[in-house]
Amino acid sequence: MMTELTTKIRQQDFRAIARLITQVENQDPIAVPTMKQLHRYTGDAQVIGITGVMGAGKSSLIYELAYQLRQQQKTIGIIAIDPTSPFSGGALLGDRVRMMELSTDDGVFIRSMGTRGMQGGLTSSVYDVVEILDAAGMDTIIIETVGVGQDQIDIVKVADTTIVVLVPGLGDSIQTIKAGLMEIADIFVVNKSDRPGVEQTVAEIQSLIDLTTQTNDTQIPVVTTSIKNKEGINQLIDSITEHQKYLSLENRLKQRRRKRYEAELIEIIKSHLMNLIYDESKLKIKIEELLDQIYQKKLDPYSGAEQILGKILK
Amino acid sequence: MMTELTTKIRQQDFRAIARLITQVENQDPIAVPTMKQLHRYTGDAQVIGITGVMGAGKSSLIYELAYQLRQQQKTIGIIAIDPTSPFSGGALLGDRVRMMELSTDDGVFIRSMGTRGMQGGLTSSVYDVVEILDAAGMDTIIIETVGVGQDQIDIVKVADTTIVVLVPGLGDSIQTIKAGLMEIADIFVVNKSDRPGVEQTVAEIQSLIDLTTQTNDTQIPVVTTSIKNKEGINQLIDSITEHQKYLSLENRLKQRRRKRYEAELIEIIKSHLMNLIYDESKLKIKIEELLDQIYQKKLDPYSGAEQILGKILK
Repeated sequence: MMTELTTKIRQQDFRAIARLITQVENQDPIAVPTMKQLHRYTGDAQVIGITGVMGAGKSSLIYELAYQLRQQQKTIGIIAIDPTSPFSGGALLGDRVRMMELSTDDGVFIRSMGTRGMQGGLTSSVYDVVEILDAAGMDTIIIETVGVGQDQIDIVKVADTTIVVLVPGLGDSIQTIKAGLMEIADIFVVNKSDRPGVEQTVAEIQSLIDLTTQTNDTQIPVVTTSIKNKEGINQLIDSITEHQKYLSLENRLKQRRRKRYEAELIEIIKSHLMNLIYDESKLKIKIEELLDQIYQKKLDPYSGAEQILGKILK
Repeated sequence: MMTELTTKIRQQDFRAIARLITQVENQDPIAVPTMKQLHRYTGDAQVIGITGVMGAGKSSLIYELAYQLRQQQKTIGIIAIDPTSPFSGGALLGDRVRMMELSTDDGVFIRSMGTRGMQGGLTSSVYDVVEILDAAGMDTIIIETVGVGQDQIDIVKVADTTIVVLVPGLGDSIQTIKAGLMEIADIFVVNKSDRPGVEQTVAEIQSLIDLTTQTNDTQIPVVTTSIKNKEGINQLIDSITEHQKYLSLENRLKQRRRKRYEAELIEIIKSHLMNLIYDESKLKIKIEELLDQIYQKKLDPYSGAEQILGKILK
């Protein structure tokens, strides 16, 4: 039997969607039956990840993308995992007004997500939120992350298409790309193309792409955009469409989705195990006492871990 | 009985240290007996975390700090978890020469660490590396991370003293601080103080500190430094010493160390469990087959996770 939330979410009821997201963020067990039921309705949404350093204009770009997709009557879910994003409330006034326009559109669902504590990484419930928005029938799901650190790697597991946003003249751009963004980008965007230095930045990215691309690979496109001059957004949408076509061949989309499900599976297991470890009534070991012993050098962390594992594992 | 590695590491043999670090990075079970033995020799090292955006000059600052600490005959371990750090080889030529000086000093051990795959986050072996360098008798351990995302929060669990490095005129500085660095900073450094705008940046940070500080709290210091003009390094060292004194009172150091041990304990447990889950011979479930079923909507991720948990848990 369907839960009430399942039914409402299938009807794209935004309040029901928000309620279930809060439940999964809180790791509330009440969410599990609904999450189980929703899975069969997933798979149709196109998931786009947008990553890049602060100040690259990711949010403005997402606004423009969302605007164009709305013209095509597509419904959109936006997940902001960047604490400085305007979608997360960290915006200048001008941005906020534009975000307000989006957030009052009943074809756009916006959710900002914060970092979690020790028991769950940033991404532990992103997979759930994608599943929820997908099952709710959103055509496109856009995830915004700040593209540094482990998060940049995690986002790839969720997105079908990953867009890496850079800006001209940022001296560290090329360093950043070398440091890991090269492998995750399906599309490069050089935003703020109205600024000087855009040709050089494009050339630098292009030469890195040429260096790392095998002859039989598809070339990663480099798109220049300017929100100020309203340039490049259509080319970006074309590149996204091209990438979707590329994914639809040779089981590529299936491979990406399997990676997402794998990451999701592991996150669910991890979060269950962490809850178990901190549930002293079930574990019958007081973590606080273990930590005291470790601090006093009566016990080492590895032996402490073995004690806990001995209590929970078959 | 002590392992050969334990004995050599206690003698501060750098090759032995490097070998054990490689073992823990590879999650090689052979490391466990040595790690267990080393714990009793830990606790004396002072652990300093240095975090801040790319281009803030963290590495140059670490170089100057290390140079000053070497004048005091202190031995130093440096752990770079920033892929663009000169310590990780991502340096300009001028930086490399200076790093070379440090790396040929037999009182300085430098190790750069990369990101891991799905089965372990960035930090999973940082705790082990800190334990190893601590047991080896290094007086000071400096950890450099790029201060964005989850990593910025994780570093606090390892460090006794966390230094957040900013630069003048970076428009996003204040946004960054608001987005999470405020809570983790024990000391703020405004580096590149030879640049214009330093007073304004200091004032902005100061007003944020004033806003968030309770009246009975110790004030977080804001130190300005310029590597170019060789200014502020001694003040920074004084601030670090002050913070150590602060920690030594009212069990504060104990509280921090317990947090580190807690994070370490959890990481050891997580990595053991992840290895177990991917060990099909032990688990008797083929993850690949589960993922196929999830992809085909015959199974949902939550039910898949329950199947796996059922196999491993008591």
